[in-house]
Amino acid sequence: MNLRIPGPTPLPPEVMAAVGQQMINHRGPEFEAMLREVTEHLKTFFETQHDVLILTSSGTGGMEAAIVNTLSPGDRVLAVSIGAFGDRFAEIASAYGAEVTPLRFKLGHPADAEAVSKALREKGPFAAVLLTQNETSSGVTNPMERLCAAIHKASPETLILVDGISGLGAIRLRSDAWGCDVVVSASQKAWMAPPGLAMISFGPRAWAAYEKARMPRYYFDLGLARKYAQRGQTPTTPALPALYGLHVSLRQMAAEGLEAIVARHQRIGEYCRKKARALGLNLFAQEGYYSNTVTAITLPKGVDANRVMETLRTRYGIIVGAGKDPEVDMLRIGHMGYVSEADIDAVFDALGEIL
Amino acid sequence: MNLRIPGPTPLPPEVMAAVGQQMINHRGPEFEAMLREVTEHLKTFFETQHDVLILTSSGTGGMEAAIVNTLSPGDRVLAVSIGAFGDRFAEIASAYGAEVTPLRFKLGHPADAEAVSKALREKGPFAAVLLTQNETSSGVTNPMERLCAAIHKASPETLILVDGISGLGAIRLRSDAWGCDVVVSASQKAWMAPPGLAMISFGPRAWAAYEKARMPRYYFDLGLARKYAQRGQTPTTPALPALYGLHVSLRQMAAEGLEAIVARHQRIGEYCRKKARALGLNLFAQEGYYSNTVTAITLPKGVDANRVMETLRTRYGIIVGAGKDPEVDMLRIGHMGYVSEADIDAVFDALGEIL
Repeated sequence: MNLRIPGPTPLPPEVMAAVGQQMINHRGPEFEAMLREVTEHLKTFFETQHDVLILTSSGTGGMEAAIVNTLSPGDRVLAVSIGAFGDRFAEIASAYGAEVTPLRFKLGHPADAEAVSKALREKGPFAAVLLTQNETSSGVTNPMERLCAAIHKASPETLILVDGISGLGAIRLRSDAWGCDVVVSASQKAWMAPPGLAMISFGPRAWAAYEKARMPRYYFDLGLARKYAQRGQTPTTPALPALYGLHVSLRQMAAEGLEAIVARHQRIGEYCRKKARALGLNLFAQEGYYSNTVTAITLPKGVDANRVMETLRTRYGIIVGAGKDPEVDMLRIGHMGYVSEADIDAVFDALGEIL
Repeated sequence: MNLRIPGPTPLPPEVMAAVGQQMINHRGPEFEAMLREVTEHLKTFFETQHDVLILTSSGTGGMEAAIVNTLSPGDRVLAVSIGAFGDRFAEIASAYGAEVTPLRFKLGHPADAEAVSKALREKGPFAAVLLTQNETSSGVTNPMERLCAAIHKASPETLILVDGISGLGAIRLRSDAWGCDVVVSASQKAWMAPPGLAMISFGPRAWAAYEKARMPRYYFDLGLARKYAQRGQTPTTPALPALYGLHVSLRQMAAEGLEAIVARHQRIGEYCRKKARALGLNLFAQEGYYSNTVTAITLPKGVDANRVMETLRTRYGIIVGAGKDPEVDMLRIGHMGYVSEADIDAVFDALGEIL
């Protein structure tokens, strides 16, 4: 199978072998060594010197942790959304009693820094801004450096909480340099590991907010997670197979290096887009904001996306992602982590035959 | 290594092989078939005809789901605790704003049905009672049939929420017959699968409570989980390796059968206790309430539990659990799931040499 969805992503053979290892004691020295090494590597790719904590959950659980550990019911939040996952971040904040001001941009477009500044100045103050680094539902990467700078300028006190789930480890996010207070990712994306773990960075301003935050939390309490992390443990039993995988995949990533990995994703993203254009297919994202981890393409009028996906799967063994908007006949092609040009060729060779 | 902690438990070879399989699409037909089969098997072992839902989290996340999906802030809850995990259940309810009345029994003892009845009659009404089926920290199994009957008699409207994490799949809990509204377990216990998944049964009275429950929730929202389960999916990306493992281990368990599995755990529990007594070691649990999944033994005066554990690990490759109470020099020996008499022999042969 050629798994070309935007997560879970395929495991390299060495990672797959690690995942299938026997269980160990999560309160023992072997686990402690693994957790410490994983955490150090994650800091490199999160581009932070602050805490990075590991939770057993999907990325959505990590988003919930970002919210409930920094905010109180009634806190005002500016939820910048460029698609389904931006909307989800806002829904989580609402579910926990934040007063959410949505700032939505048209699907396929990035967030506009000027519009975000304006909202902060005219509708603020806000306790936090919610941002999506890479919107998986539309194949758009936000201009994070510009957005963060605009937010800090317009409202220096406001926290920046970032969903970096489908971007981190493939698209740069200079968390500390750009002033991202909290950044979330998940093991099954560019990290080439199985699902089961969310990873979350938490900077000093986030910890200060934690002290005052009154949203209820227990399982996702990051204060507890930090306390356990200091002795090389997690508060409760973690998803060991995913951690085994992440341990090995991060070693591979560290050997390749952040800049080389980012360049590789840029190259494969461009390759995918070139292939799509060569078939006469439209890219859904606005030019200049193409994601290097997932490409959304719209199909020609009259072509049913579901039938195309079914044929790709049954006849070619290729699994792509469906569009999140039932109104648009869209396919989403994941190309994060363990993927080569040959994998992309296979997709477009098949699409060429089908269309 | 002879992993004799009360979870994670060792994986049988067939399960381990399944865990290390390549990733699949969690929105595809292969996943749907797996999830449906796993769910059906779980219903057999949860002894329920109602919903059983699968969450990506540790067992503690499942306990949180039990609370937040049935209760509202200010609801009165009777938290029956016989140890650390009963206390944890109460802490979660408190964290989400329930008004918790603790009813603690001495460590090593089960809950007394008469005392529970009395608390319900004299301090009630309560929206829910929290119960632990099997207290991992003391090696005690509660008399669940008696407790449930007493609760239903004293207060028919009160929901019964059960932490069955370390008991289910090894010790019977007739959820429907005894009227347990919500029961939680976790994949890394008697299920012989890796950590990463919590499983939770939710009966009709729990769903009725869900409609009125106002505790905040998003990641652990069981209404969303049920909606996705109906189409063979989970709301967010699940811990696939743990699910692959559970899929295979449940087939093995179904082939062996519930009653045979329970009898096997009874046999191995008795074997472990006999071996402990033969070495002159004291069982921590009150007689008649011994757990068949974990045995807590107290060491002779002057023997340091930490040193014994360290020697077991480094010289014999045996990992046992530490006591949860720093005042008591205790070892906890897990014998749930994939364990044989020979594994128990190894522990006591080593202990005999050390002591």
